[in-house]
Amino acid sequence: MPRYVNVAMGQLGPVNRADSRQDVVARLMEMMREAKSLGADIIVYPELALTTFFPRWYIEDQNTIDEWFETAMPNPATQPLFDLAKSMQIGFYLGYAELAREDGEVKHYNTSILVDKTGEIIGKYHKVHLPGHRENEPWRAFQHLEKRYFEPGNRFDVYPAFGGVFGMAICNDRRWAETYRVMGLQGVEMVLIGYNTPVHNAPAPEHDDLSLFHNQLSLQAGAYQNGTWVVGVAKAGCEEGIEQIGGSCIIAPSGEIVASCISKHDEVAIAHCDLDFCQKYKKTTFNFDIHRQPAAYGPITQYKGETLDANGQRRICRG
Amino acid sequence: MPRYVNVAMGQLGPVNRADSRQDVVARLMEMMREAKSLGADIIVYPELALTTFFPRWYIEDQNTIDEWFETAMPNPATQPLFDLAKSMQIGFYLGYAELAREDGEVKHYNTSILVDKTGEIIGKYHKVHLPGHRENEPWRAFQHLEKRYFEPGNRFDVYPAFGGVFGMAICNDRRWAETYRVMGLQGVEMVLIGYNTPVHNAPAPEHDDLSLFHNQLSLQAGAYQNGTWVVGVAKAGCEEGIEQIGGSCIIAPSGEIVASCISKHDEVAIAHCDLDFCQKYKKTTFNFDIHRQPAAYGPITQYKGETLDANGQRRICRG
Repeated sequence: MPRYVNVAMGQLGPVNRADSRQDVVARLMEMMREAKSLGADIIVYPELALTTFFPRWYIEDQNTIDEWFETAMPNPATQPLFDLAKSMQIGFYLGYAELAREDGEVKHYNTSILVDKTGEIIGKYHKVHLPGHRENEPWRAFQHLEKRYFEPGNRFDVYPAFGGVFGMAICNDRRWAETYRVMGLQGVEMVLIGYNTPVHNAPAPEHDDLSLFHNQLSLQAGAYQNGTWVVGVAKAGCEEGIEQIGGSCIIAPSGEIVASCISKHDEVAIAHCDLDFCQKYKKTTFNFDIHRQPAAYGPITQYKGETLDANGQRRICRG
Repeated sequence: MPRYVNVAMGQLGPVNRADSRQDVVARLMEMMREAKSLGADIIVYPELALTTFFPRWYIEDQNTIDEWFETAMPNPATQPLFDLAKSMQIGFYLGYAELAREDGEVKHYNTSILVDKTGEIIGKYHKVHLPGHRENEPWRAFQHLEKRYFEPGNRFDVYPAFGGVFGMAICNDRRWAETYRVMGLQGVEMVLIGYNTPVHNAPAPEHDDLSLFHNQLSLQAGAYQNGTWVVGVAKAGCEEGIEQIGGSCIIAPSGEIVASCISKHDEVAIAHCDLDFCQKYKKTTFNFDIHRQPAAYGPITQYKGETLDANGQRRICRG
């Protein structure tokens, strides 16, 4: 019996600083209803979906920063979304800034959750690959201070859900082959990824016209090379004066694009995804048990980069 | 001062069983002269360039098999190619089947070499990811017995050459993100890859029409995600009744295709490649020292696949 999952993308247009959580949740609920009317089992929302993309600003006052973080989930602002999901029996992926307390310590994460059709949170992910920088860099047209405002997660888990094996990643994670591979080794069948990607990348502005191409290339390669569905969903359009790419899309395990958003606004698109299709790749070209060669992969975990070892210490660089 | 390398692709049309090494070397020399006339510093030839792609046949007699292997390099048949390279001052990458003797043991490798402008072999690579199967499978239209005829290599090295940092891989290696990453961690600036890829893949024939797409997707993702040039060169066309993809191409560190072969015959195409262009990616989005997170990558070296650990033993499978 085929295992189909109907996946909706709930692409968001801009969320401005003046917009309240309630404003945004109303938009998410509107898209959830539309997704349900199209037969969706789950709707995928972007990264940091509840607020504007605040890492674009350098702010020194921690209290001001913390206002963009959620201290509980659900909370009064998001409870209606959970209630609607439960009443309509639809799952969702949601990205938000999380302020957690772990063993008495305050932690800030760029977080996503996976919610099942009963409205229960069944998975939580902390973004591993935080892009950008830590200090204010006034030469940039705008900042990208994720390394300042968040600390990185350190694991990619998978979850039995919706009749298959689901995983999560966030934004910049999608450019790193390791993201998909760690989940591929756990049999992932669908990877859900929300993102906020400015068209303009200050360190290499001459490649701004390739932003959409790089987005698709990364999602397609991750899908194909692990025999998994990949769903990428944007917060798109001109947010607080900054243009962000759209390009939300659903990629099959063949690497083919099966659904796309075509606007820079709130937009729902859907695909009918056969999870068993993954086996066409997982059992053939990408049968890891037969074809991977970990003996040749040592440097991937031994080194961080060209000059640093995995612990961030200087290493001898070859070549 | 920009560091340009002019790279030629020496795509081969079919090589049939009746063709001698001398026949093939004459074709390689013809393309080498053409490449030199176009200003090439190096020409890249395919995998197993000196013979037909013999793993398509199941053969029990080891002596018959060994006739496709080279016991020395250069040897009388290939010496003229080395001599021409030296006299014209052009380097080359060449793939061939190698019969080696290591500590008194006979080893069979799917090998490539990197030869500099003085005709010296400065690098040798043994294919890590051997595709296909070990036993005769008569249900297939043709066999793919690389796992029977070769043993795998276990390392991806890089070499200072042509004013930059060069690496090698062979055919199926290009589909595995680990291939590029291990070399990326050594600062590779150009990865040379020869291949023989039948259009028809017996285990998943319904995806034969995607063969060229998967070729490009893998090469483009490997280039972009490591900020390196990638050169893929085919043995193309109908060889011994089997159609093989062409699609030889040169990919920039941006993931863009900058040169392509457009036939299924012997064909030379060239690109003028700025090795410093790599830094646009290696110092920004893919600055590994700043952005990689090895603490999250453990499973990549710890496990072979969904059910096996790195040593091929059963592991508990999550999810």
